[in-house]
Amino acid sequence: MTPEIDALLPFLLRRDNVARYENGVVFIGDRRKYPFEKRFVRCETVECVARAIENMVTQGGGPWVAAAFAMAMAAREVDGRPANQVRAHLEQARQRLVNTRPTNTALARRLAEAMKVAEQALSQGESVETSLLNWLDKVRDQIYRDYFKRARFGADLIADGDGILTMCFAETAFVLSLALAKEEGKDIRVFTPETRPYLQGARLTAPSVHELGILVQIIGDNMPAHLMSLGKVQKYFTAADLVTLDGHVVNKIGTFQLAIAAHFHGIPYFVFSWGPDRESPDRASIVIEERNPAEMKQCRGTPTTIDAIDAYYPAFDITPPHLVAGVITEYGVLSPYDLKRYFA
Amino acid sequence: MTPEIDALLPFLLRRDNVARYENGVVFIGDRRKYPFEKRFVRCETVECVARAIENMVTQGGGPWVAAAFAMAMAAREVDGRPANQVRAHLEQARQRLVNTRPTNTALARRLAEAMKVAEQALSQGESVETSLLNWLDKVRDQIYRDYFKRARFGADLIADGDGILTMCFAETAFVLSLALAKEEGKDIRVFTPETRPYLQGARLTAPSVHELGILVQIIGDNMPAHLMSLGKVQKYFTAADLVTLDGHVVNKIGTFQLAIAAHFHGIPYFVFSWGPDRESPDRASIVIEERNPAEMKQCRGTPTTIDAIDAYYPAFDITPPHLVAGVITEYGVLSPYDLKRYFA
Repeated sequence: MTPEIDALLPFLLRRDNVARYENGVVFIGDRRKYPFEKRFVRCETVECVARAIENMVTQGGGPWVAAAFAMAMAAREVDGRPANQVRAHLEQARQRLVNTRPTNTALARRLAEAMKVAEQALSQGESVETSLLNWLDKVRDQIYRDYFKRARFGADLIADGDGILTMCFAETAFVLSLALAKEEGKDIRVFTPETRPYLQGARLTAPSVHELGILVQIIGDNMPAHLMSLGKVQKYFTAADLVTLDGHVVNKIGTFQLAIAAHFHGIPYFVFSWGPDRESPDRASIVIEERNPAEMKQCRGTPTTIDAIDAYYPAFDITPPHLVAGVITEYGVLSPYDLKRYFA
Repeated sequence: MTPEIDALLPFLLRRDNVARYENGVVFIGDRRKYPFEKRFVRCETVECVARAIENMVTQGGGPWVAAAFAMAMAAREVDGRPANQVRAHLEQARQRLVNTRPTNTALARRLAEAMKVAEQALSQGESVETSLLNWLDKVRDQIYRDYFKRARFGADLIADGDGILTMCFAETAFVLSLALAKEEGKDIRVFTPETRPYLQGARLTAPSVHELGILVQIIGDNMPAHLMSLGKVQKYFTAADLVTLDGHVVNKIGTFQLAIAAHFHGIPYFVFSWGPDRESPDRASIVIEERNPAEMKQCRGTPTTIDAIDAYYPAFDITPPHLVAGVITEYGVLSPYDLKRYFA
């Protein structure tokens, strides 16, 4: 475990508050209710976890952790059965879980790993559930150490007096980099576009940054370029749902638009990433998830127009490498054009 | 009157639905309730009209018309009194009304005209109320003819098959240009960013365009650049709250960000304008209205975050002339660098 990192983090990002497993039950921190309520979705079935992921209960680094716990749950359901039955049951669970978020290749990759862990446990006659939980614990330990490493690189990019723009909820490495910059006495101010339609910026990022005692202001998704023109923004940081091997950044819709505005104003754009996805060589390999247009016509349940009107809701966009000043990985702040050398 | 233009327009933009005057009472079309309800705010005092303008009951071309009717109402209140008293009363009303929207110089200019009309009526012993109403009727006739002229220029810029992006609610000239393009058999599709926090795009533009039988989709304010990258947008049109003599466009926050994205993608940006404001030579002469941050933390009354979090809400932004392909005026589609020759 990595308790010292956990202590630096706001409520939402603490390890057990993302997702946890208790005797065959998965608890997922409900990011749809936050910050109005601090609640968990309690799941006793794989289908429940899959629907929670589809329904945006969690996002960013959350879905694959919840899905991995769901695999342990699936293993528990068939504990002691013949290997073939266990295998088939796990494969069914894996497929259901991977189909929840087609753009999230981390989810697919982690669950492929989980299948290997399960296979090994089966071949050695060990408990698949326990093996999966032990594997997940180790992976998460490593992940939090990696968060810290990237947060350190991020904090070094932040100068005293910086105004920092972000988009959506850039999660642990970003928030931790702000915490480290603050610890070093850097006076910083953060601007969080609200991130329609799910308001991750207003609901998740802003309260999390505020919890660290850092000045933060919510703005509309239509305001960042204006703030840049006023000289209020010195750095732009986001996470990435996926980075291609040739340096394209796939992230929450709006990321690209702000990268263009940042480039126009000479403001560097940095991306926190686990590294590129080996299955995604280039832009052409990306499938952008289009969500139900009805989601774009409401705001926390309040309709924004009348039913008769149509909407369009692509959930992600793609920022080309020439707009990216650096990809923050475990190896440092890399050029988006040089990722293959480290990760291919 | 200009009934033939009125017939081409959707509900919201018809002349009497913007604002009208009936025996000392001003009715203002309530754009905050639209499209959920078609209601009017009924005002019997100047203060009521001023508050309605401050509270965004109307916007775009609405505020000055409502304010001009309020001047007629003020004149009626002191009908028959000595000229000095009438003058003082009107001046008091004018000041109150102008202070409602500091960025809206059209409002200030029109009310200065109204004062002159009142002065002339006083000097000739005529009814100030009637003179103001007659003046306003003539001005509005001229305005609707001008709307039509500019709409004609706008429609000529639209090609068959165009995807058209707009921002906020670009009002009559824009909507009329779509109606004319459709009449000519051009197959067009319109994308309206919802325009947070007041959702003018979702509530006003989208239903108005839909009413014309033109395909329209609401998108998030964070989505236009992505649509551009997909080749879905061929033209970007907005109105302008103000254009400076040197071609800077002041319009609803977000306009500038989309102009940058359009420029990045080689998509021309056209602005419907009455012409530059002679009192605004350049960018430095512009004061951007900053509204109550609390307005940025709700969506039709639903909170988007918790009270403890701060927000920032500049209501307008400034687009420099090098991002503007043309300013659509009564004289045609002018270069933003050539406005002085026509209007100075």
